[in-house]
Amino acid sequence: MTRPFLVGLIGNGVTPSLTPLLHMREAAAHGLAYVYRTIDLSALGLPAAAVGDLVGSARTLGYDALNITHPCKQLVLPHLDRVDPTAQRLGAVNTVVFEDGAAVGYNTDTTGFATAVRTGLPGVPTREVVQLGAGGAGAAVADALLTLGVDRLTVVDLDPVRAERLVSELAARFPESRVVAADADKLAALLPEADGLVHCTPVGMAEHPGLPLDPTLLHSDLWVADIVYRPIETALLRAARAVGCRTLHGGHMATYQAVDAFRLITGVDPDAPRMLAHLSELAASEQRTEH
Amino acid sequence: MTRPFLVGLIGNGVTPSLTPLLHMREAAAHGLAYVYRTIDLSALGLPAAAVGDLVGSARTLGYDALNITHPCKQLVLPHLDRVDPTAQRLGAVNTVVFEDGAAVGYNTDTTGFATAVRTGLPGVPTREVVQLGAGGAGAAVADALLTLGVDRLTVVDLDPVRAERLVSELAARFPESRVVAADADKLAALLPEADGLVHCTPVGMAEHPGLPLDPTLLHSDLWVADIVYRPIETALLRAARAVGCRTLHGGHMATYQAVDAFRLITGVDPDAPRMLAHLSELAASEQRTEH
Repeated sequence: MTRPFLVGLIGNGVTPSLTPLLHMREAAAHGLAYVYRTIDLSALGLPAAAVGDLVGSARTLGYDALNITHPCKQLVLPHLDRVDPTAQRLGAVNTVVFEDGAAVGYNTDTTGFATAVRTGLPGVPTREVVQLGAGGAGAAVADALLTLGVDRLTVVDLDPVRAERLVSELAARFPESRVVAADADKLAALLPEADGLVHCTPVGMAEHPGLPLDPTLLHSDLWVADIVYRPIETALLRAARAVGCRTLHGGHMATYQAVDAFRLITGVDPDAPRMLAHLSELAASEQRTEH
Repeated sequence: MTRPFLVGLIGNGVTPSLTPLLHMREAAAHGLAYVYRTIDLSALGLPAAAVGDLVGSARTLGYDALNITHPCKQLVLPHLDRVDPTAQRLGAVNTVVFEDGAAVGYNTDTTGFATAVRTGLPGVPTREVVQLGAGGAGAAVADALLTLGVDRLTVVDLDPVRAERLVSELAARFPESRVVAADADKLAALLPEADGLVHCTPVGMAEHPGLPLDPTLLHSDLWVADIVYRPIETALLRAARAVGCRTLHGGHMATYQAVDAFRLITGVDPDAPRMLAHLSELAASEQRTEH
């Protein structure tokens, strides 16, 4: 009997997350015993600042690893023994692995999104890309886009201060790239010139239905990637496909961040297409239950 | 996929415990996913008083249950929401189950030893029993013996104060029984009259080899139960069998405390003979490795 893995997810509102099942199903397919628990700060009545204590307790109580999500990805950093260069550069950690007793931080949101685009939208042009949303997920996605070689990235957020802040961080990290912030009312001018549109706001999620922009701005030469994955089929992706866009649903990023985390935690290379199929199936069955 | 169980063992020096494998193998036989972790205070450099915080952390981090061992069985009590009557009576808890968020304490050492005697030494006379050892395990065993209906229990310990303290606790709880303390030099007078001898000191364990009493005091009308189970075959049991005693090895108590804990944790009735066979096999393979 191999030693089972014990993994947790710390964040607000994580109780219904699909990530635990995604990890556990993949582990079962490899014959690994694997327990993945949600540690839901909102359900437990704990503040985000509790993440430091929780990381310490998890190490003491035999956890092998943790995923970290909103609102703890930045707050967790001072509580780690080491942080890998990608996560350090981003200032955000979504995966903590206990390696010989040391808590080591990684960021598989950015590596996961990069792999999602490479595998799900192979060969798309990346000269001009517009990104909607400059929050935590947006920061990881923008980092991945610039790592993938996007020449000019325009970040649009309803909060212009947040967009400007992300842009200056990115400009410092990627001095070769052009990264600019723009107001939402500039989309009508930006999108006709753009190769790709990446959506990183909560609009389109089950709790925030709707479209994040005027769909008449979409055109067939644009590829569209959404990071919303509940539902997998968002109004934005439907509108994009209706005008002939190549699209990438949010299940790809959700899967590949889990693929990279699973590999870091277990040392076993997961079957990424199988995990993507599992995630799509889990998300679809959830939609059937809810509607 | 059923929700996996997550269970831990808190105590000093628990890293090499066989209990985790015993639980996990039985769970696997029932098709249950089950992770059992050791939380070794000595390895972690934590004091016994840390048990309260650990129980709290375990609840927060999604543990379903904990086994508690030396030196925390008494210390854990104030940190529980409820304690079942048997454990309350004993003032010692070896199993904590999180039931709808409440930490509930049980003692399966005493229920386990009682079942071990009932199943492993059926029909033995219980008029006069001598018990060696008045420590924590001895307290649970004495409670089980009186619950089983022993008429007169004599407790012998190298520390006469400890023997007297246990005896007065037992006398208060079992006013119908005769319970007395005696010094070790009285064994020569006690054993010829006794039906049974129960051994609850560490003598005979791999780290404390030897015999806990003069073997010439053993006689064929005496049954002998040992609670040492590493090794399964102690010098005491060998000597007892050599003179024709009925014997019960310590693997029975170790197994039945786990049987009762497993049932409390999972709600599933385990296969006790299979668990006993597993434990004996694990202990035997350990002995082969060590010698």
